[in-house]
Amino acid sequence: MTDLEQRLGYAFRDPALLSRALTHRSHGAEHNERLEFVGDAVLNCVVAAALFRRFPQLPEGDLSRIRANLVNRDCLLQRAQDLGMAGLVRLGEGELRSGGASRPSILSDATEAVFGAVFLDGGFESARVVIEQCYAEAIQAVDPGVSGKDPKTRLQEWLQAKGMPVPEYGITAVDGEAHKQSFTVSCRIKALGRETTGHGASRRIAEQEAARAALAELVP
Amino acid sequence: MTDLEQRLGYAFRDPALLSRALTHRSHGAEHNERLEFVGDAVLNCVVAAALFRRFPQLPEGDLSRIRANLVNRDCLLQRAQDLGMAGLVRLGEGELRSGGASRPSILSDATEAVFGAVFLDGGFESARVVIEQCYAEAIQAVDPGVSGKDPKTRLQEWLQAKGMPVPEYGITAVDGEAHKQSFTVSCRIKALGRETTGHGASRRIAEQEAARAALAELVP
Repeated sequence: MTDLEQRLGYAFRDPALLSRALTHRSHGAEHNERLEFVGDAVLNCVVAAALFRRFPQLPEGDLSRIRANLVNRDCLLQRAQDLGMAGLVRLGEGELRSGGASRPSILSDATEAVFGAVFLDGGFESARVVIEQCYAEAIQAVDPGVSGKDPKTRLQEWLQAKGMPVPEYGITAVDGEAHKQSFTVSCRIKALGRETTGHGASRRIAEQEAARAALAELVP
Repeated sequence: MTDLEQRLGYAFRDPALLSRALTHRSHGAEHNERLEFVGDAVLNCVVAAALFRRFPQLPEGDLSRIRANLVNRDCLLQRAQDLGMAGLVRLGEGELRSGGASRPSILSDATEAVFGAVFLDGGFESARVVIEQCYAEAIQAVDPGVSGKDPKTRLQEWLQAKGMPVPEYGITAVDGEAHKQSFTVSCRIKALGRETTGHGASRRIAEQEAARAALAELVP
């Protein structure tokens, strides 16, 4: 068994499948993109079933939101790090030189491809066991009222639960040249006499950052 | 076994799951939306794996496009009709009076919920067998060069394969009041001296209809 197989808790019958899952398209024709397609579908299915069982009262919309938060690139990248994928993906020389070995998209895609390879090699049950183990902590940590909600939504819900009006957002500065502007936005919560600030490459991002700062001050 | 179970080729251990899959939210609190969430995920996974095996040479992008075409509402509605779902979904009285029993969204959602119920009742293999049987003809009929491509794309590819320039689209009429306009668009293929017409509630729809008319004339 390779180190990765030990961390997965799964030994491949066909090691060529695992090898292919770890081959980026920059390396050659036998790359992992078709396996990633399968892996993405298996991952979504396993996580959907796990959330269905874990949260018997949650409506479909909440399950969808929570799943989206668990299968997005950031969360997959954490799985990739847990599995020690960083040194294992085979890349073309150009991609290697430009830092591909630690590129988030390459690592998260390869992780999905590994899940797909386990499914094709050992069937759904094998994939379920591997994925549920990889995701055990993340699923355990899900807070159904919060997971996958953006900071503006969370701040608004927190204020409304306390009977307070929604915050006011406003642009206070726009810097930089036209093609690369930086926005500064304030988030004012009159009822509490608070004001926080956020920066970002778009008004939307800056508003989220300002809301995140407010949450950090207000919510224990 | 109920008639539906016979058509599915699957007998439920827990008939309450099937009953719930056939209950629309207008009927009461014990409705099928959470089962639909699971069923959607299972369906996507089974179809992904079937296409992966059926088309060993197709790149990931083509597999995605073909799958999207197989799991969309229209294709699900055909499965619902094959399964005779129309009289089986339990609806609230208001929904029943307004024609809900034959509403495409209600029937396709309930079909996904039934797939989810089979998965939860009998496991992935049971769901795979049921779904692959329901989709056997549709998957058999997939033409990888065409399935899921819109008419404009297909027309352009057909012309380019013959070394001809792309068609020219132009609005020839806009009718109706501002909030409910109807667009007429012409699709001109100069190299062939052909011109077809399409109508629709947006320019985009009218262009697709004009391209569809051209394909109908040109492609055997």
